[in-house]
Amino acid sequence: MRGEVKKLLVINPNSNKEVTRGIDAALDPLRATGGCIDVVGLEGTPRGIESQLDVDTVSVPLANEVRAQRESYDAFVVACFSDPGLHGAREVTPKPVIGIAAAGLLTALNLGNSVGVISILAASIPRHWRMYRAMGISERLAGDIPVGASVAELADDSSMGERMLAVGKRLVAQEGADVLVLGCAGMARYREPLERRLGVTVVDPTQAAVSTALGAALLGYRTL
Amino acid sequence: MRGEVKKLLVINPNSNKEVTRGIDAALDPLRATGGCIDVVGLEGTPRGIESQLDVDTVSVPLANEVRAQRESYDAFVVACFSDPGLHGAREVTPKPVIGIAAAGLLTALNLGNSVGVISILAASIPRHWRMYRAMGISERLAGDIPVGASVAELADDSSMGERMLAVGKRLVAQEGADVLVLGCAGMARYREPLERRLGVTVVDPTQAAVSTALGAALLGYRTL
Amino acid sequence: MRGEVKKLLVINPNSNKEVTRGIDAALDPLRATGGCIDVVGLEGTPRGIESQLDVDTVSVPLANEVRAQRESYDAFVVACFSDPGLHGAREVTPKPVIGIAAAGLLTALNLGNSVGVISILAASIPRHWRMYRAMGISERLAGDIPVGASVAELADDSSMGERMLAVGKRLVAQEGADVLVLGCAGMARYREPLERRLGVTVVDPTQAAVSTALGAALLGYRTL
Amino acid sequence: MRGEVKKLLVINPNSNKEVTRGIDAALDPLRATGGCIDVVGLEGTPRGIESQLDVDTVSVPLANEVRAQRESYDAFVVACFSDPGLHGAREVTPKPVIGIAAAGLLTALNLGNSVGVISILAASIPRHWRMYRAMGISERLAGDIPVGASVAELADDSSMGERMLAVGKRLVAQEGADVLVLGCAGMARYREPLERRLGVTVVDPTQAAVSTALGAALLGYRTL
Amino acid sequence: MRGEVKKLLVINPNSNKEVTRGIDAALDPLRATGGCIDVVGLEGTPRGIESQLDVDTVSVPLANEVRAQRESYDAFVVACFSDPGLHGAREVTPKPVIGIAAAGLLTALNLGNSVGVISILAASIPRHWRMYRAMGISERLAGDIPVGASVAELADDSSMGERMLAVGKRLVAQEGADVLVLGCAGMARYREPLERRLGVTVVDPTQAAVSTALGAALLGYRTL
Amino acid sequence: MRGEVKKLLVINPNSNKEVTRGIDAALDPLRATGGCIDVVGLEGTPRGIESQLDVDTVSVPLANEVRAQRESYDAFVVACFSDPGLHGAREVTPKPVIGIAAAGLLTALNLGNSVGVISILAASIPRHWRMYRAMGISERLAGDIPVGASVAELADDSSMGERMLAVGKRLVAQEGADVLVLGCAGMARYREPLERRLGVTVVDPTQAAVSTALGAALLGYRTL
Repeated sequence: MRGEVKKLLVINPNSNKEVTRGIDAALDPLRATGGCIDVVGLEGTPRGIESQLDVDTVSVPLANEVRAQRESYDAFVVACFSDPGLHGAREVTPKPVIGIAAAGLLTALNLGNSVGVISILAASIPRHWRMYRAMGISERLAGDIPVGASVAELADDSSMGERMLAVGKRLVAQEGADVLVLGCAGMARYREPLERRLGVTVVDPTQAAVSTALGAALLGYRTL
Repeated sequence: MRGEVKKLLVINPNSNKEVTRGIDAALDPLRATGGCIDVVGLEGTPRGIESQLDVDTVSVPLANEVRAQRESYDAFVVACFSDPGLHGAREVTPKPVIGIAAAGLLTALNLGNSVGVISILAASIPRHWRMYRAMGISERLAGDIPVGASVAELADDSSMGERMLAVGKRLVAQEGADVLVLGCAGMARYREPLERRLGVTVVDPTQAAVSTALGAALLGYRTL
Repeated sequence: MRGEVKKLLVINPNSNKEVTRGIDAALDPLRATGGCIDVVGLEGTPRGIESQLDVDTVSVPLANEVRAQRESYDAFVVACFSDPGLHGAREVTPKPVIGIAAAGLLTALNLGNSVGVISILAASIPRHWRMYRAMGISERLAGDIPVGASVAELADDSSMGERMLAVGKRLVAQEGADVLVLGCAGMARYREPLERRLGVTVVDPTQAAVSTALGAALLGYRTL
Repeated sequence: MRGEVKKLLVINPNSNKEVTRGIDAALDPLRATGGCIDVVGLEGTPRGIESQLDVDTVSVPLANEVRAQRESYDAFVVACFSDPGLHGAREVTPKPVIGIAAAGLLTALNLGNSVGVISILAASIPRHWRMYRAMGISERLAGDIPVGASVAELADDSSMGERMLAVGKRLVAQEGADVLVLGCAGMARYREPLERRLGVTVVDPTQAAVSTALGAALLGYRTL
Repeated sequence: MRGEVKKLLVINPNSNKEVTRGIDAALDPLRATGGCIDVVGLEGTPRGIESQLDVDTVSVPLANEVRAQRESYDAFVVACFSDPGLHGAREVTPKPVIGIAAAGLLTALNLGNSVGVISILAASIPRHWRMYRAMGISERLAGDIPVGASVAELADDSSMGERMLAVGKRLVAQEGADVLVLGCAGMARYREPLERRLGVTVVDPTQAAVSTALGAALLGYRTL
Repeated sequence: MRGEVKKLLVINPNSNKEVTRGIDAALDPLRATGGCIDVVGLEGTPRGIESQLDVDTVSVPLANEVRAQRESYDAFVVACFSDPGLHGAREVTPKPVIGIAAAGLLTALNLGNSVGVISILAASIPRHWRMYRAMGISERLAGDIPVGASVAELADDSSMGERMLAVGKRLVAQEGADVLVLGCAGMARYREPLERRLGVTVVDPTQAAVSTALGAALLGYRTL
């Protein structure tokens, strides 16, 4: 029956355990639904998905993880803003496989008029725009601006928060965004301070994707 | 705190109690989350929303209902495929107000590549396309084909099911749709047979919107 | 016969008589055609249409006014830049009902390459973009920038003129607009000074709509 | 002063005097406005504009005619559905120069949701689509279907009317058009029977352009 | 110096040597330029790229092959219509890496108005449309229709030619295509008979890509 | 046979012999292919194509030149960034006729994500955008910024190089372009210094078009 408690597997395709833990912590508000939400990383993958080659590198391992777990879970979430392996993973199971970029963006389209994305690396922007256009929603994107962080800075919370705030301000004040999406998994801890200081809703894409996947599991959707 | 059990109000803007009951029944799978989901109709509105004038007629009463209940619920759903009064209602509360058309369509965009809509009345098609374009997603719409039902036929289940199936077949085979949306509230009972016979996922927009609203409430989103 | 003198009714959906008088004065150049152009306001509506809820509030009264006058006039103009009730009013008569936003924008598309809109309130911008996208013309919009006026400032002519000029300069110099539209009814008095100082054509949408409606009446068009 | 009686020059860029006379006759309903509307053909141009080369051939002569008459008229209309020389002619005068394709299409966008074009020759269709896309309005075009007439058939009224009707039926029933545009100058005589039999508004582009040009002259617009 | 003879490496990402040989033979007309064009397959990859998972499977091996050969060649061609690994391979060398889908489609855009694609498998169509939209050119696509071949039929030349012809006829006559692209590598042998019988230009994407890559090498372009 | 050495005619539609010589010199890298590339100007045309009227003025002479030479060459290139007479010239021969704007832009789409155009005159920008939209690729254009040169400055190399660099910097840093196109024929000498100083690929459209035309001739494409 459709109405049962559902089991979700969130897969962080990089091998950075701190990111995996951060994702896990961000999903607590959704555990109130009684759903079981497990978060795992992948072994042997890059510590960060920073290039198209990194995306391609993790695509098959990600699909393999979905295949290995397809009997054990009701829905799957790909927790990287490039949605690596998303459509390949959908070929190994009829159960819902949800990417955080697609889910985060579609969620934002439902909350505001014009979506801004706070990204990490400048090199990801062209890859992101290929994805926005592939989704057919680029007309609703106000902009995608990178923080331009180095690896060292990524680890430095206070600096990162300020830089994300500066990018958020540009997206809102200059590009006209009225809802923002964090262009990376595992940054949910920045969501609340950004919302408070910017005055617009900020979507953490992993939270949005898990919520979407939970609904998809409850309602029996299949993904193509 | 964000993680608590949430209360949702689903508002059917027409005064047809049978439709309200049908909506209520369709939401059972989502009650497994422990959320409280109430469904109400509006008094003194048309028995069906069949024209732009009907849409305009119920917009203010709908916003008024949201205003009257804004302290009692955590999120609101407008249960009519024209999303009447959606943006007005968003002005009376920062809590999430979700329209079933927007939510149904955005949900479908996450499940397949090309979305087909099974509508009821031919006269609604231009109104629907204004909405699809306003959302900036028309490039992903394979088509919107009306069943062309008369009021008498709407009541006749067996005929309606067959006609919806015929429209669904056209959308899939001729227009290339690989995911379908029911272009009307309260038709969730047709979802399962259509999926079984067409082999594609069929989205009931009210189910999709309630799932979306539940996530929005849990995650503390505000709608603009 | 189609060639007769035509009677047009321009409906200002707010209850601000000064606005109604301003609209009336702006239409004198079009009275040279021998057409009879009456301008009326609506009773009991807001003094200004500043929100989606205001738009929704006046939609049905506007359609009712068109219905009440449908035998007495040959065409109708909705004189508010959100085109409230436009498509509903079209359902009560086959005679042409023209909205000033649609007519102003389509007129501008015929005069230049890239259209800029000078709006009044920041809160209207998302509503405007929903409309531009619904019309399928957003690719031709250079930008829509609000003056950001308070009610007090709206009454202060000299300040308003300067602020509109500043917005116009931004639209032309930074956004690349080569034709402008005033995003509000009843501001025709700013048209000539703006054109003179900016060097581009400025469209008063009410004038454009009345001209469009006159042609539609003479040529026997019906609106859908 | 802006409110005076205006003089319009309609230029048929081909040398077919029968077409010029047909255009002239179709404009009578607009003469009720008191405007003076002269219609001329060009000498030494092709008898029909059937190819891109024909379009290019008449572009400079057309601009020269506008230049020669720029002191004598208040606005100009280019009466060929390819709008030959339109933007060149706009460079020789700040007064409004209006093309019938642009004006006919923008007029239709104001009357319905989805525009169908009844064209004459199959070879014109790619040229038309380049124009629709250049205008940024192709999303609103339901289709452009040629009658596929030979020269002999073009002269044969009864056959032509039936063929246009057949194309109109396809545009409405199969392509979803709810307003039609005649894709050729000088076919206004088919407008009324097509409207009566198809039940949708049919726009004669020359009538639409002259109405647009009249308004532009009265309101002092300049074209770019 | 830029003007020297250039060496190109064409990589067939599947392991089917017959396909590799077919590609090689199709490139003879381009060898007249004096360029050196080598064609290789990949070891250990699927015999055909039929799914997104196949695409993902060959992406990294393809980039590795480019990396291994980056000092030995002046430009690279990815010879599969899904352009697997294209953007990843561009990260391992500044030299031009060209995908046959992108090059075939952009070439077709330069030859006609409306592009039709003859594909092999129905399951590839959604993947293709994601690519067309990602490229931002979907407005110019008339349609993408699969032959729907089984593996056995793919080997049967005469049946395949007839089926491709039937699809080509539909694209031209019903969808309005005026230029066609073969949606698969190594089918160049069908190009000439299709052109002769359909009367439109047919682009073999591998030929188009090699020509594009040769020009890119001669002119010193880098790909991003 | 398709593989033979091909003869190309590049037509500079203006009468400025220095421009013709500059174009000729820029094509040397492509002569390595063994193709024969002749460059000619037109007599009696403007010294520069600076307006739509200039474009219209040279369209027929250009088509006439193609017609006169159609037996002597295998492919033709229109060497002006407005592609004057391109589609007319295609009507006088089935052999490929390539415009430098279309070829330069489509080439750039294959090299990067977001295309910036460095134009000469501000007045050309609306004409360019009509062309970008007509091609259906405007979504991929980051911007088109004019150098704003006077005729005197155009002749002054050092000043021109600096101004183009400044425009290129704006396109890359502010508009997000990652590949640039020179919006004028015969400026290939600026390509290398711009690439070196901006760090992105710069496409000279004439080089791109000749390379495209060479491939089209070798592969036997016809243009429509």
